[in-house]
Amino acid sequence: MSERAEKLNSPSLGPSPNRIPALTSAVHYSIFDSPKRLGMSTLLRENQSLIYKPTAKHDPDLFSFSTTYPAQQLRKVVSSMTEKQEALRYHSEGRPGKIEMSVSKPCATQRDLSLAYTPGVAEPCRAIRRDPALATQYTARGNLVAVVTDGSAVLGLGDIGPLAGKPVMEGKGVLFKRFADIDVFDLELDTKNADEFIHIVKALEPTFGGINLEDIKAPECFAIEEALKREMNIPVFHDDQHGTAIISGAALLNAAALQGKELSTLKIVFSGAGAAAISCARHYVQLGARRENIMLVDSKGVVYRGRTEGMNAQKEEFAADTPLRTLAEAMEGADVFAGLSMGGLVSSDMVKSMAPKPIVFAMANPDPEISYDEAREAAPDSVMATGRSDFPNQVNNVLGFPFIFRGALDVEASAINEAMKVAATHALADLARVGDVPRSVLDAYGVSLLEFGPEYIIPKPMDPRVLVEESLAVAEAAMKTGVARKPIENLGAYRRRLEILSEKLQSIGT
Amino acid sequence: MSERAEKLNSPSLGPSPNRIPALTSAVHYSIFDSPKRLGMSTLLRENQSLIYKPTAKHDPDLFSFSTTYPAQQLRKVVSSMTEKQEALRYHSEGRPGKIEMSVSKPCATQRDLSLAYTPGVAEPCRAIRRDPALATQYTARGNLVAVVTDGSAVLGLGDIGPLAGKPVMEGKGVLFKRFADIDVFDLELDTKNADEFIHIVKALEPTFGGINLEDIKAPECFAIEEALKREMNIPVFHDDQHGTAIISGAALLNAAALQGKELSTLKIVFSGAGAAAISCARHYVQLGARRENIMLVDSKGVVYRGRTEGMNAQKEEFAADTPLRTLAEAMEGADVFAGLSMGGLVSSDMVKSMAPKPIVFAMANPDPEISYDEAREAAPDSVMATGRSDFPNQVNNVLGFPFIFRGALDVEASAINEAMKVAATHALADLARVGDVPRSVLDAYGVSLLEFGPEYIIPKPMDPRVLVEESLAVAEAAMKTGVARKPIENLGAYRRRLEILSEKLQSIGT
Repeated sequence: MSERAEKLNSPSLGPSPNRIPALTSAVHYSIFDSPKRLGMSTLLRENQSLIYKPTAKHDPDLFSFSTTYPAQQLRKVVSSMTEKQEALRYHSEGRPGKIEMSVSKPCATQRDLSLAYTPGVAEPCRAIRRDPALATQYTARGNLVAVVTDGSAVLGLGDIGPLAGKPVMEGKGVLFKRFADIDVFDLELDTKNADEFIHIVKALEPTFGGINLEDIKAPECFAIEEALKREMNIPVFHDDQHGTAIISGAALLNAAALQGKELSTLKIVFSGAGAAAISCARHYVQLGARRENIMLVDSKGVVYRGRTEGMNAQKEEFAADTPLRTLAEAMEGADVFAGLSMGGLVSSDMVKSMAPKPIVFAMANPDPEISYDEAREAAPDSVMATGRSDFPNQVNNVLGFPFIFRGALDVEASAINEAMKVAATHALADLARVGDVPRSVLDAYGVSLLEFGPEYIIPKPMDPRVLVEESLAVAEAAMKTGVARKPIENLGAYRRRLEILSEKLQSIGT
Repeated sequence: MSERAEKLNSPSLGPSPNRIPALTSAVHYSIFDSPKRLGMSTLLRENQSLIYKPTAKHDPDLFSFSTTYPAQQLRKVVSSMTEKQEALRYHSEGRPGKIEMSVSKPCATQRDLSLAYTPGVAEPCRAIRRDPALATQYTARGNLVAVVTDGSAVLGLGDIGPLAGKPVMEGKGVLFKRFADIDVFDLELDTKNADEFIHIVKALEPTFGGINLEDIKAPECFAIEEALKREMNIPVFHDDQHGTAIISGAALLNAAALQGKELSTLKIVFSGAGAAAISCARHYVQLGARRENIMLVDSKGVVYRGRTEGMNAQKEEFAADTPLRTLAEAMEGADVFAGLSMGGLVSSDMVKSMAPKPIVFAMANPDPEISYDEAREAAPDSVMATGRSDFPNQVNNVLGFPFIFRGALDVEASAINEAMKVAATHALADLARVGDVPRSVLDAYGVSLLEFGPEYIIPKPMDPRVLVEESLAVAEAAMKTGVARKPIENLGAYRRRLEILSEKLQSIGT
């Protein structure tokens, strides 16, 4: 798209931020933060024509523009600024943060409190002391998941530490609750030591029904998850590893079907070799891809057998016997590109060099390795997915963790094993093929139709059927593989329970 | 009271539990558990005339009585049984347990979720990264307290372990929420090692605004609290130590005033030398009592200087230079008896041997060292308090922790120090002297008047004024002693905020 270089002629600095809305109607009127604090200084340096200054001493954070600046770029800058303001306001307005505790039982009278606390509470204590399994019946534990982080790899923000990571962990709790009615305690741990992390989480086993590890950097995350899975008798799941693997795995199953290719024949190139990439590679193998057809490429180039720089045990697992060294070389003739790295790494030419009918999953956030439009233009016969909600086929982890834990908790699973992850993957893939998307979902996404095809290979997160189908599949897989401590006898009744829950959740938070 | 030995003439075992209500009208009609599972087998062995058996194969837990059994005792047995049933039902009915998470912000639409989670959530993360103090503004941390236990000394149940202790910890969360709108994560830790416990809780500092240690046995609890207070920058408070100290301290101030005695002259005898007793003794000294006038008595007798058996550093602190060896000897001529030990240890004669106008705090739970009626009969000029809600002057910890944390969190205190505890104590004592108890409180306790005097020396937990007065006093003390990181400038406005909150809380859980 070419840029319309509308010029603004307003040389004087006014005291009011009201000048901004004149530039665009999409923008909110009040701006409470300085451009510098909003990270605008960089943008400003790049575009010397935009200047700003505080408007008044008593309110130094209010500012206004006066500039001959391309209006469209200014709109983008101001819009991103107000987005940020909006996000800060959302978090601080009213009750700070996003979660609170509620009491789920009556607690108004002295009588109520004598049941909730002493003397009545002694009874469930005694009962659990006699039979630990009763904790699920008399406490919130069976529906309670810890979202635990050390803050070492938070979203795309990197190692911002546990305290700064708290908003994300609370947000994860919001998603667990909103999509699967699972209660979450978010725990941010001040430790950089994997053994210590393991030790702490292990000691918390009496508290929780499940552990969701979150935003822990590689390679520590592998050792942490492995140890906790081995040592704990409740589900342990590192979402950054398995979430993307499961959702993109479902997309891969459907994309391969659309392109008429078998998983076992796919040549797959990964950009990125971190936790998510390794886990995707492993999961694709579980789904039918061949390890020898997979190639990882990281910031040091292709992960080849014999490479010594920047290696670890996980990369070694996929080290390829190949003379290829760069991402561009690796992508030539490949069937699948799976991007879990950084925005903009892939060019049109690289996509054009892939095999016919390629599959392009550019999943870097917020900017994909190549944009949806660019990739589709380069290869009109491609099937394309990204991590973005504003294009078709968003690989969004929220399609996984809430429902996987729902199914696992409902059968009191002692673990989330490979079979359960594969079952979740197939449930998602199958649901996209069914079509028949409810009207509410179409409305939510502002489309009139969603039909299985290149622009719809995975269900939408807001689709209420995901809870039902995925949780059911996971629960069944747990039962089949013997990790369900409380198998469900009547699966029809369980399906109805999930349908009722799904209905109820549609109204949460509205 | 003499026992009316009503005999029942119903020799045949009927299939219906409806027989029971014929015996007493106070009893619920359905009994779903077997007497054995209810712990009745012991009772039955002691009273051979009562027999039971399951009524039918298909419902083996229903049972009925057929007996010539004193009706009043049977009533008591059945009533305690149904109390237990009621408590179990309360905990299991509907959503298991007593707490759940709620989302405090809108989360219905994709737009909402893009603020709660990615991409919007990155903004508060960045803000907190730049300025850690903003965590209070953008997350729930500033109102979030951990209730942490190892399950080693749960209520009167002893070392039942962390899992079986979970109902109590959830219950504590209910009280925090119900009385002060504080959010709680209850954490049950599977460790018996004090250093490990300290390590874990310390690592959780980014998660919480405060730490409430709970039901940890002595002497480990002392080391744990001391270390965490030293190493953490948020309030750490072991309720079992300080709760009783503060509430009974308020009672002591008022009892001494009623009896016309100065605290500095009081001869005080403790029955018990555990965490609560030590902490009470220390706190009474803070309030004006003299260390040399205090004597501890434990299961090995008087804690005297030179004793070697069953000693520790805390007992050593109060070891008395005395030839006295027994509780009875120690109580002779004492002004104050403070019982934190076991039911029934004190006789009428022991109370009669005390100084004139004695103060008798028999706080063992659920059965006091001597019953209210017995003590008052033995010394009609005494002022008496117990831990029971069915007699005047209940020393109930819920009068302390919710409001102390409320005040501490509201000024972002870095600690709960001695001055804050003393302020809480005086606020409680003063409130009881004010009288003027709201109608709602009188109704809740079924009395027509509560006026400062021997039968009303501490406020009632349901009194909505406690939140206002105690939190305010604690916040002010924090400011005066320099531990308030966010001092309140307008205390009048803060008082009004507390009044509004108090009003709101009256309707929670109804």
